[in-house]
Amino acid sequence: MAMPPRTCPHRLLPISLGVFQGVLLLFFALFVSYNKSLPQAEDASLVAIQLYGTFPLFQDIQVMLVVGLGLLLTFLPHYGLSALTHNFLLLNFSTQWALVLQGLLHYFHHGQVLLDLHNLLTAEFAAVTVVISVGAILGRTSPCQLLVVAACEVPAYLASEWAIVTHLGVQDVGGTITIHVFSCYFGLGVSKALFGAAQQPVHPKETPTHRSDLMSLVGTLILWVFWPSFVAVLCEPGDAQHHAILNTFLAMSASAVTTVVASSLLENDNKLSPGHLQNGSLAGGVAIGVVADMAMPPVVALALGSLSAMVCVLGFKFLTPLLVRKLALQDQCGIHNLHGMPGILGAVASAVVVLVAPEDISGSHFSQVSSTEENAREEAWGQRGDHGVGRQALYQVVGLVVAIGGSLFAGLLTGAILRLPCLTRPPERLCFDDSMHFKIQDQAKRPEPGDTAEEGALALKERD
Amino acid sequence: MAMPPRTCPHRLLPISLGVFQGVLLLFFALFVSYNKSLPQAEDASLVAIQLYGTFPLFQDIQVMLVVGLGLLLTFLPHYGLSALTHNFLLLNFSTQWALVLQGLLHYFHHGQVLLDLHNLLTAEFAAVTVVISVGAILGRTSPCQLLVVAACEVPAYLASEWAIVTHLGVQDVGGTITIHVFSCYFGLGVSKALFGAAQQPVHPKETPTHRSDLMSLVGTLILWVFWPSFVAVLCEPGDAQHHAILNTFLAMSASAVTTVVASSLLENDNKLSPGHLQNGSLAGGVAIGVVADMAMPPVVALALGSLSAMVCVLGFKFLTPLLVRKLALQDQCGIHNLHGMPGILGAVASAVVVLVAPEDISGSHFSQVSSTEENAREEAWGQRGDHGVGRQALYQVVGLVVAIGGSLFAGLLTGAILRLPCLTRPPERLCFDDSMHFKIQDQAKRPEPGDTAEEGALALKERD
Amino acid sequence: MAMPPRTCPHRLLPISLGVFQGVLLLFFALFVSYNKSLPQAEDASLVAIQLYGTFPLFQDIQVMLVVGLGLLLTFLPHYGLSALTHNFLLLNFSTQWALVLQGLLHYFHHGQVLLDLHNLLTAEFAAVTVVISVGAILGRTSPCQLLVVAACEVPAYLASEWAIVTHLGVQDVGGTITIHVFSCYFGLGVSKALFGAAQQPVHPKETPTHRSDLMSLVGTLILWVFWPSFVAVLCEPGDAQHHAILNTFLAMSASAVTTVVASSLLENDNKLSPGHLQNGSLAGGVAIGVVADMAMPPVVALALGSLSAMVCVLGFKFLTPLLVRKLALQDQCGIHNLHGMPGILGAVASAVVVLVAPEDISGSHFSQVSSTEENAREEAWGQRGDHGVGRQALYQVVGLVVAIGGSLFAGLLTGAILRLPCLTRPPERLCFDDSMHFKIQDQAKRPEPGDTAEEGALALKERD
Repeated sequence: MAMPPRTCPHRLLPISLGVFQGVLLLFFALFVSYNKSLPQAEDASLVAIQLYGTFPLFQDIQVMLVVGLGLLLTFLPHYGLSALTHNFLLLNFSTQWALVLQGLLHYFHHGQVLLDLHNLLTAEFAAVTVVISVGAILGRTSPCQLLVVAACEVPAYLASEWAIVTHLGVQDVGGTITIHVFSCYFGLGVSKALFGAAQQPVHPKETPTHRSDLMSLVGTLILWVFWPSFVAVLCEPGDAQHHAILNTFLAMSASAVTTVVASSLLENDNKLSPGHLQNGSLAGGVAIGVVADMAMPPVVALALGSLSAMVCVLGFKFLTPLLVRKLALQDQCGIHNLHGMPGILGAVASAVVVLVAPEDISGSHFSQVSSTEENAREEAWGQRGDHGVGRQALYQVVGLVVAIGGSLFAGLLTGAILRLPCLTRPPERLCFDDSMHFKIQDQAKRPEPGDTAEEGALALKERD
Repeated sequence: MAMPPRTCPHRLLPISLGVFQGVLLLFFALFVSYNKSLPQAEDASLVAIQLYGTFPLFQDIQVMLVVGLGLLLTFLPHYGLSALTHNFLLLNFSTQWALVLQGLLHYFHHGQVLLDLHNLLTAEFAAVTVVISVGAILGRTSPCQLLVVAACEVPAYLASEWAIVTHLGVQDVGGTITIHVFSCYFGLGVSKALFGAAQQPVHPKETPTHRSDLMSLVGTLILWVFWPSFVAVLCEPGDAQHHAILNTFLAMSASAVTTVVASSLLENDNKLSPGHLQNGSLAGGVAIGVVADMAMPPVVALALGSLSAMVCVLGFKFLTPLLVRKLALQDQCGIHNLHGMPGILGAVASAVVVLVAPEDISGSHFSQVSSTEENAREEAWGQRGDHGVGRQALYQVVGLVVAIGGSLFAGLLTGAILRLPCLTRPPERLCFDDSMHFKIQDQAKRPEPGDTAEEGALALKERD
Repeated sequence: MAMPPRTCPHRLLPISLGVFQGVLLLFFALFVSYNKSLPQAEDASLVAIQLYGTFPLFQDIQVMLVVGLGLLLTFLPHYGLSALTHNFLLLNFSTQWALVLQGLLHYFHHGQVLLDLHNLLTAEFAAVTVVISVGAILGRTSPCQLLVVAACEVPAYLASEWAIVTHLGVQDVGGTITIHVFSCYFGLGVSKALFGAAQQPVHPKETPTHRSDLMSLVGTLILWVFWPSFVAVLCEPGDAQHHAILNTFLAMSASAVTTVVASSLLENDNKLSPGHLQNGSLAGGVAIGVVADMAMPPVVALALGSLSAMVCVLGFKFLTPLLVRKLALQDQCGIHNLHGMPGILGAVASAVVVLVAPEDISGSHFSQVSSTEENAREEAWGQRGDHGVGRQALYQVVGLVVAIGGSLFAGLLTGAILRLPCLTRPPERLCFDDSMHFKIQDQAKRPEPGDTAEEGALALKERD
């Protein structure tokens, strides 16, 4: 290759990542130690049982994020290695960054930060927002830019999560508002600020092939299977967790069937769109998170799953093209259809469920939440307990508004940072191509990118 | 495309599926609520431990059915999206349908249906029969026809399962007789009635490619790994469950090795057949289910695993071609080799094990089973306890006969329904092709199906 | 095909495997029965809880070995079926063989061998060494040769593990020394003795393609996700297990980020090498095993993860080419970079951690280890307890030396056996090709191997 294409200044990515790893090591050396339980025999077996209850779900979530989400993003046929690797790198970087920030912000007691599986989980949830958000700008950004998104989004998420859950007392066990809605509008904000008013042209490598659609669908199925673990992992053990699992299953199942119905009805010849399936099947999981552990009959989960799948498929069919035409909004993976609208649907549903739930059951739910260890939250609940369910319903809606507003603002700011001269975007002709980021060993045998023969070779490749 | 090919009347699939979702919502709204445990502290921790014992196995089973089985079916190189999607849709539709029927039939107490993870599991088992059965007719049927199979097979399975397990008291913890044998002969019945006496010609897209065989083998490995969870999930906790896990592992392991031996010995040049590996490795899991929790030495599990793998490979080599020649029996995935014959082998083995097991151990096993919550079954056991092991062995065989007879009859009836004029089969030239069911985005760049250039393009595709 | 290519004498593979299955059946029939707990009610629930604690981790490990490792080895684009199948066959054969040997050697009490999930796990760990070792000779060996490697390596591993853990009392909960270092140098020994002083030429089918790199990366991600289960499964329940999980996660996470840094810095144009990612991301898991449950601050895990990823990437870049040039050492998968050097790093780190750990904490760790059921080990610990931590640190290093020396010696011997005339290697032109071992159904449509047109067809295939 005559001139190596560069999107970031020389070695900005490895050097900044390397410096971050150094800072992380220093921070851990100075402050972090393990949370140790008391050395009593009974306690030890209790620790073991708690671990047995959480660890399998933690592993399920890891599979979802690292393997399932990674595969889902391989729908871009020439960008599979990049999609898997960027997803993997961002998850790790963001989790580490969230551990640092959480340590500094929340867990700074007695001069040290105590680490346990629960901390890891909440840090991982912060990382989830990053990998969802970058779906909006996938393929047209450099790894440096993605790292900047992660660096900015994690603190924004922690602030937003504090405001919504700890301060406002919004109930959101599955992260519908705090994770899905937040990351969707953050990502759209970044995309808008980064790409500006110019509509992006359709790239020849953007179109999924039969094979890339198949890989992506496998990713969807992995996410679909383990979604109940994601929603239930932070629930109170016992009935609440049990019902959260069942509700999530019902919502996912209704989503899967309704997606087929909606996608099939919307096309002239009754064929299914792979993109609809890949996303619509998961919409129920997004929507159910906020109500999964509430006292409600199972029919609500089914209805919410069906509705959110419909909204998601309709979004792909009508809203996405409209947003492109009217706002020149670039949303590569359709995160607004999968995370935005189903999330809003779920949040509104949670307000309704809080309002109409029978008094005594919702009371038992309230007291159950107050039995968590976080004292600040417990007191906040105590206060609101006097105000009753009406106010709680209001807070659910206020939380949604805060999530949308805060994330849009933070996303737009982050997108503006991404336009800094030191973070140049890859040129259009190198977008959506793994050879931009990877030393592919059979490259020598392929026509050079930028060659005039490229289009012909691509057409050949896309045919298989 | 000048004229969209249609296999079902316009929009029959989405409309009937949509109506079903509406009925499901109505049924859940009217009757279904969650099973709630008593609000005692000890109980809550017990609920949690029960959940921790079942939920990871439930997730394993979900991975098997949604991802593993889906991938196994992608051995048809141009039909991967359809195989994954139809498997996914049928699983969801059948589980929901089984929840409705189970609710109506078995769990209708006090005007409501109580839902918990155990109900979901048994409903999912009903769905398993459907996805096994349709393996016989995969690729030559429309989605509408598959839904009709599901609609008919779930009630047939519930009736058969009631007759075999509840009424006859057959022991079958892993579903060898009730699930595998039943679904195999149901599927063969459907295939016979649907395709009639005419032998189906070999289709050019039917032949697996190197890549599709690889994907399918990954599916096999996923099924292989999680099979112990499938067999053990409904066992009594404690030793019975522990032994069921070990027995299943041993049977699967012996199957894997024996499949290599048998496949290699049957070919002239000692090469392995990918199809033998994809199926034979799993045959041990099918056979072991019915004896997995019985009191028997581990060598039985090994022997059963070896034998069933042999039977499965021999079936592919000799029986399947024979059935095609003599009976014109279409069995696309070879379900008779994987589910039929190993299932029969397991059922016969269970009768032998019951007969020769030492009196006291088999007694302890009997009393253990009677400690389950289902009263009807408990009483039935009490009666049979007096008749001794001879009668139990007889019942195991009678259960097998009932499963084969009932499923063949129900399958033939269902196959006859599939020939109704409103459920036309896809034309032969569009079989085994995803473009029949999916809006594939790079279609424009491909030669049109039906074009005379099609065969050339196919040959090109099959080469990679 | 005019003359079937043969690497083993006619039917040596299926006949020897078949005989082995017969011997296994005989051994199980004569000696093996299930470990049965006492028939007390409390005990039954204890058995259940123990099972719930171990079984999900056992399944995670199965997924790692059967699916994850299998996929990782599919980086050879024409050898995917063989890689998956040989890995699967070797795992099963070696586990069965280890069960027999373990039964004979260790568990022979009262004329029978008792089998439980714990035995299966330790037998599976023996099998892991085999599938790691054969990575050095992947693609240039016949299945018969691989089986001979397994037959020799399992007893060598059991002897080495006995010497290192039981006799020397080395602490190595995650198998860093006993599994990773051992299997690496065993494999290198086999490779050296098998291929001799002649440097192997670069084979045209050896180069990964874009697609095979993607599949392999998915395998890496599956291994990465479940590695904490592998390290923690044999830990004492409670804090030790909890910390082992956290330490492994931290080490893996640091490895992932550091691999990107190191790979990116080492290339001129800042591109990543897929091979570095596939291996470096896992190096932290190899290194952390030996210290995972020791009393140490979490920063050690992060540092070890970063360091081992660096060492691994540097090894691929500089050491592997050097070993090829100087020693003509064939290491197809780079097991020295992934298992050898990170393993040595971890062993050295364990000596340091033992030395500098605070006295009281390390004391509590010692006593905790002594509470395991193995009496011999308990007494050994009691003796060493008097000698203090200095001696324990020394033993960690001695264990490392024993593992390297013993495995090299056993590996060289095994490699010499592989050169026996009855175990001919496949000819060079048939290496790295599935059609050597598999009856691929679309073979008829492909140019015959050995044909002069082959190279052209290959170039075409490698392009997609």
